[in-house]
Amino acid sequence: MSLTFTRGSVLALALGLAISGTAHSQTAPYAAQQAAAAQLRDKALKGSIAYELVESLTTEVGARPAGSAAAHRASDWAVARFKALGYDKVTVETFPVPNWQRGAETAEVTAPYPQKLFITALGGSVATPPLGLSAQVVLFKRFDDLLAQPEGSLKGKIVVVTERIIRTQDGAGYGAGYRIRGQGAVEAARRGAVGYMLRSLGTDSHRVPHTGSMTYDPAVSKIPAAALSNPDADLLERMTDRRAPVTVKMIVTPTTGPDLEARTVVGEITGREKPEEIVVIGGHLDSWDLATGAIDDGAGVAITMAAGKQILDRAERPRRTVRVALWGAEEIGKAGEAFAAVHGAQVDRHIIGSESDFGGGKVLKLALPAGTDRVFASALYSVVSVAGVIPERTPAVNGGADLEEMNALGMPVASLRQDGTDYFDWHHTPDDTLDKIKPADLDQAVAVWSAFTLMVADSAVEFRAPKAAAK
Amino acid sequence: MSLTFTRGSVLALALGLAISGTAHSQTAPYAAQQAAAAQLRDKALKGSIAYELVESLTTEVGARPAGSAAAHRASDWAVARFKALGYDKVTVETFPVPNWQRGAETAEVTAPYPQKLFITALGGSVATPPLGLSAQVVLFKRFDDLLAQPEGSLKGKIVVVTERIIRTQDGAGYGAGYRIRGQGAVEAARRGAVGYMLRSLGTDSHRVPHTGSMTYDPAVSKIPAAALSNPDADLLERMTDRRAPVTVKMIVTPTTGPDLEARTVVGEITGREKPEEIVVIGGHLDSWDLATGAIDDGAGVAITMAAGKQILDRAERPRRTVRVALWGAEEIGKAGEAFAAVHGAQVDRHIIGSESDFGGGKVLKLALPAGTDRVFASALYSVVSVAGVIPERTPAVNGGADLEEMNALGMPVASLRQDGTDYFDWHHTPDDTLDKIKPADLDQAVAVWSAFTLMVADSAVEFRAPKAAAK
Repeated sequence: MSLTFTRGSVLALALGLAISGTAHSQTAPYAAQQAAAAQLRDKALKGSIAYELVESLTTEVGARPAGSAAAHRASDWAVARFKALGYDKVTVETFPVPNWQRGAETAEVTAPYPQKLFITALGGSVATPPLGLSAQVVLFKRFDDLLAQPEGSLKGKIVVVTERIIRTQDGAGYGAGYRIRGQGAVEAARRGAVGYMLRSLGTDSHRVPHTGSMTYDPAVSKIPAAALSNPDADLLERMTDRRAPVTVKMIVTPTTGPDLEARTVVGEITGREKPEEIVVIGGHLDSWDLATGAIDDGAGVAITMAAGKQILDRAERPRRTVRVALWGAEEIGKAGEAFAAVHGAQVDRHIIGSESDFGGGKVLKLALPAGTDRVFASALYSVVSVAGVIPERTPAVNGGADLEEMNALGMPVASLRQDGTDYFDWHHTPDDTLDKIKPADLDQAVAVWSAFTLMVADSAVEFRAPKAAAK
Repeated sequence: MSLTFTRGSVLALALGLAISGTAHSQTAPYAAQQAAAAQLRDKALKGSIAYELVESLTTEVGARPAGSAAAHRASDWAVARFKALGYDKVTVETFPVPNWQRGAETAEVTAPYPQKLFITALGGSVATPPLGLSAQVVLFKRFDDLLAQPEGSLKGKIVVVTERIIRTQDGAGYGAGYRIRGQGAVEAARRGAVGYMLRSLGTDSHRVPHTGSMTYDPAVSKIPAAALSNPDADLLERMTDRRAPVTVKMIVTPTTGPDLEARTVVGEITGREKPEEIVVIGGHLDSWDLATGAIDDGAGVAITMAAGKQILDRAERPRRTVRVALWGAEEIGKAGEAFAAVHGAQVDRHIIGSESDFGGGKVLKLALPAGTDRVFASALYSVVSVAGVIPERTPAVNGGADLEEMNALGMPVASLRQDGTDYFDWHHTPDDTLDKIKPADLDQAVAVWSAFTLMVADSAVEFRAPKAAAK
């Protein structure tokens, strides 16, 4: 894209429309909402309660995997905080989640060069024998190289994939690498492997491996799966490059017990004119067991709770209802389904939804649903551009993991895209701690979320295709 | 210092001398050495064997605490490499070292906010009871605040000191913080504490605590001592700032066995005219058990072995003998004493010594002994300035930990000061891995070490005060 476009033409491109008239005449119907949203924006830019919220959650609760005692302390914290902030209604939605508990996790090269390796089990992995699994390593520098192996050709081996994810601002590198973690154990087992290890889906160079979810295929034997820290993946590459067989011993001893109860907490700001019309924003309250859940996703929890608080602090409620949902099992992919089970029957009343789940960085881009009213979009972009947000030209198709099911049922979604350049340095590791969050960046995100949420909730704008919107 | 000085006046200041004549006429007596040193410098800047050496040591050996089986593999590696590189003589000097073995090391806040803490035992620490030591925390944000407490006032407490070290290019921040690790357990115990934890002497923000040595006082009870990762020190600060008592449980279970045998390996380049006059350079071969010893001190080993190799590759040996010493127990402070026990009787034959032990960064400054001949100094600075090295105005008083005893006996020392801005992000942790070393920076260090070593060894310059030099 050329950088010589004017702002007007960029907006036109963003919305796929030709523009006529000035920005002012265009957005005049939303002048009142713009003024109100600008006020919230400027207030947040001067300082919001978001950092205090994430400081409190990470200090007083810390790691809170779905269904754990700590997760219940987190949901109690959320209920108490929503009430203290003056939310009109607070509800807790419970649902069952698998009970996977991390055990020991160690690994070492036993030959030809004995060295310790830093690994962590992937969430859901089966265990090795308690005394470990020893086997020769077959290392692939690209996942596609593993896929190119014939079935049965890796019998008895521990497969290691050391493909790196790329550092990108928008997380696309992680997206591209996701299958290496998600499907690697199945693909390795299909070819006869007895264990699977991947280079962490992380952009750092620390001895801190990144956990994350994975899947098994009922038709393929389940083998233990773990992530190596980046420097350990480098080490195995250097050893296998030397051509002598490399033998590794890995021990992971996770266990699975009876299901646990997860809790999604919803704080509501009840609309003054159209309370039955709902705008859903939020973040997820659960974290990985390894992390303290500051960037993933204490930040999203704090940003959206604080955005709601900004709206609550106004003299009147917005026309529509705003719900701030703090989902209780995002990391293991169980909260969205449970949320849709509760709210799916009223999906038509859900105007739009969006989840904040990409850390504490600044919002850089805002994507709206395809076909969004151009006047409304221009009015909204005009407000958030002051905070440094540009329009995303491609319409939003993903509103966050916990809104996938509601989106599939027909709820439109928006996407407020943050700067995630460093996010995968810390994601899903013990390094996900409060010091990674810059208060001023968090406040900028609150400014943008407040403005977006208020403009949507305090207007009559519809995001569904005309037919649906007209009913 | 003003930045408007000319190079000549900077040199004059560096040496505390008035300058007369041009750089050329000044340094003419060393023209041949300068030309030879410049050749080695330029050759190394185009690429040296140093990175290959540290790659090999960290891949094929890895962690190698003094006296361990891995340390013996490292000394075998060093002997084989010295021989393969064509060193004239290779000797192994053995000496006993304490046998301290790390055990379990875990900690957690048990109240009011249960959370896991990441700790590592300090080298030499005694153990807690196997099931742990639980006590209330008393936290000091400054070490001096602990020192200000009266004796017996911290009875039964776990003392935590969270003072931060400052990031500096020259390591001065670490120097200033050293006592917090070295003397903290004694000072806490003197006041009645039962356990001691400090914020890691590290400049990073990772859940990777930094180990290191400590001392006990025979007159004060020995209490277990551990380092917290930086984010965990932050967490304890935030918790104790809330004023409710904070209780921590710490478990460290190191053990001590019969002494082990450490090995210092020395590769010699025998002088062609004055073989009895010795220039000592080197690094230390041992590492902490947690690290792979890339920056500490595989880099120093590689830089000095490679510098020696550059000298060996010349058509003739230098006038004097060069010894590249790879000390076998720097981290626990035992190698310098053992080295002086072997070589101290010939200290008068040791012209100068210097150890490379500050990572793989570029050499920025070169400090020579007080009273160094100004003509020689100008000639040397002129050669290394091309590689980006400036004179250090303060004379060298410290040639490295393993040369302290030889220096105390009268051997002059030089100091080749590297850029250590990031060094304490990784120092004494598992994060000390090969990826932290930039090959081009390592080559620059080889260029400077080669030039320095050759100019000293291929001349008749003396660094002792005139009386000593004259005998």
